[in-house]
Amino acid sequence: MEKFVESKNISLELANKMLEAARAKGEELGMPFSIAIVDKPGNLKAFQAMDGAPVLSLDIAQNKAFSAAAYNRATHEWYDRLKDDPPLLHGLVHTPRLVIFGGGYPIKVDGELVGGIGVSGGHYTHDMQVCEAGLKVLENLD
Amino acid sequence: MEKFVESKNISLELANKMLEAARAKGEELGMPFSIAIVDKPGNLKAFQAMDGAPVLSLDIAQNKAFSAAAYNRATHEWYDRLKDDPPLLHGLVHTPRLVIFGGGYPIKVDGELVGGIGVSGGHYTHDMQVCEAGLKVLENLD
Amino acid sequence: MEKFVESKNISLELANKMLEAARAKGEELGMPFSIAIVDKPGNLKAFQAMDGAPVLSLDIAQNKAFSAAAYNRATHEWYDRLKDDPPLLHGLVHTPRLVIFGGGYPIKVDGELVGGIGVSGGHYTHDMQVCEAGLKVLENLD
Amino acid sequence: MEKFVESKNISLELANKMLEAARAKGEELGMPFSIAIVDKPGNLKAFQAMDGAPVLSLDIAQNKAFSAAAYNRATHEWYDRLKDDPPLLHGLVHTPRLVIFGGGYPIKVDGELVGGIGVSGGHYTHDMQVCEAGLKVLENLD
Repeated sequence: MEKFVESKNISLELANKMLEAARAKGEELGMPFSIAIVDKPGNLKAFQAMDGAPVLSLDIAQNKAFSAAAYNRATHEWYDRLKDDPPLLHGLVHTPRLVIFGGGYPIKVDGELVGGIGVSGGHYTHDMQVCEAGLKVLENLD
Repeated sequence: MEKFVESKNISLELANKMLEAARAKGEELGMPFSIAIVDKPGNLKAFQAMDGAPVLSLDIAQNKAFSAAAYNRATHEWYDRLKDDPPLLHGLVHTPRLVIFGGGYPIKVDGELVGGIGVSGGHYTHDMQVCEAGLKVLENLD
Repeated sequence: MEKFVESKNISLELANKMLEAARAKGEELGMPFSIAIVDKPGNLKAFQAMDGAPVLSLDIAQNKAFSAAAYNRATHEWYDRLKDDPPLLHGLVHTPRLVIFGGGYPIKVDGELVGGIGVSGGHYTHDMQVCEAGLKVLENLD
Repeated sequence: MEKFVESKNISLELANKMLEAARAKGEELGMPFSIAIVDKPGNLKAFQAMDGAPVLSLDIAQNKAFSAAAYNRATHEWYDRLKDDPPLLHGLVHTPRLVIFGGGYPIKVDGELVGGIGVSGGHYTHDMQVCEAGLKVLENLD
C-alpha cells in the first residue's frame, strides 16, 4: 500500500535568489513590478512589490504564481489552448485566481514542479521577461 | 394545502460506488482527477482527489457538480444555450460556482434529480469520460 | 544551497481506508457524521457525508481537518492553550477556518505530518471517537 | 485649499532589510515563521515564509501587519483596550483581518507611520521577538 506521495517545495533560499534576479531585471526595464513566488500547492512563499508598483499588480502577481503552480503550466500557454474552444474561452477564464495571460511560470528543479513565479506591473510581455530573469537562476544552481 | 415538498438525495452508498467507477476510469486514462459528488441541494456528499491531481482541479470539480445539481443540467450543455444570447454569454458566466464547460452532470434515479457529479483534471473531454463512467453505475442498480 | 524542502502527502489509498474506518465508527455510534481528510498543506483529499449529516457539519469537518494539518495540532488541544491567555482566547478564535474544539487531528506517518482528519456531526466527544477510529488504521499499516 | 495629503511609504529596500533581520531572529529561535511587511495603506510590500512555516501562519502574519498599519497600533495593545469595554470585546474582534494579539507593529520613520510588520508561527511572544528584531533595523538607519 502506498501511504504517501512525496513532493518537493521550493526553499526560501532559492525563492529569494529568484526574487532578487527578477527584481534586478525589473530595475533594468525601469518599471515597478510585483513579484511573487509560491510553493508547489500554490501558497505564498516570498513576495516583493517594487517601489511604485501599481496596487492592482499585487494580487495579479500572486495569482499568476498560483496559476502556474496549481496547474503546472505557464500562464501564457493558456490562451492558445482556449482560443478555439469557446466553452473554455468563455468559461474557464472565470475560475477564481486563474490568470490566462503571460507572467506566471512553474518553477521546476530536476524536471519536478516545486512552485511558481508570477510577475505583474507592465504589459505581460514585460512581466514575462522579469519572470524569465528569475527562472534563469535555476540554470546555474549547485 | 401542501405542507411540504418531498425530495430524494443520493445516498452515500451510491455516491461511493459512482466515485469508485469514476476513479477507475481516471486510472485507465492515466491522469489524476478530482471527483466530486453533491446531493440535490448541491452540498458536498463525497469527494476524492487522485494522487497528483492539480490543485486547481479541487474546486473546479466541486463547482461542476454543484452547477449540474443546482440547475439540473450537464455543464457541457450550457455553451450552446449561451452562444447566441449575448446578455447571458457575457453575464451569466460570472455567476459564482457556475461552470459552463464539460465535466458536470446531474445524477438522476428513476428520472428524478438526486445530485450531481463533477470531475476536473484533464481537458473537459477527459473529465466528461470520467463522469460518464461514474454515471454508468446508475444503469445497473438493484 | 538547499533548493527545495521535501514533504510527504497522504495517498488517496490511505485516506480512503481511514474514511472507511471512521465511517464504520460513525455507524456504530448511530449518528450521521461528515468526515474530511486533507493533505499536508490542508487541501481536501477525500470526503464523505453520511446520510443525514447536518448541513452545518460539512464545512466544520473540512475546517477541522484543515486546522489540524495547517498547524500540526489536534483541534482539542487548542482550548487548554487559550484559556489562560485572554488575547488569544478572544482573538485567535476568529481566524478563518481555525477550529478550537475537538474533532480534528493531524495524520502522521513515521512521525511526519502528511495530512489531517476532521469530523463533525455530534458533540465533539463523538467527533473525536470517529477521528480516532480513522487514525487507528495508521497503527496497522504495511 | 489643501489639494492633497502627503504620505510616506516604506521602501522595498528598507522592507527587505527588516525582513532579513526578522528572519535571522527566527532562525536563532529555531522556529519557522511567516513574516510580512505592508506599506502605509496596508498593502503587501514584502513577505517570506521560512521553510516549514505552518500554513496557518501565512495569512495571520499578513493580517497582523495589516492590522498594525491600518490602525497605527501594535496588535498586542488591543486587548488591554478591549477587555473592559464589552461591546468592543465581543464585537470588534470580528472585524475581518483585525488581529488583537501580539506579533504586529506599526513601522515608523521619524515618528511617522510608513507601514507595518507582522509575524506568525510561534506563540505571540515569539512572534513579537521576531518583529522587534526587524524593527531594530530602524534604529540604525542612515
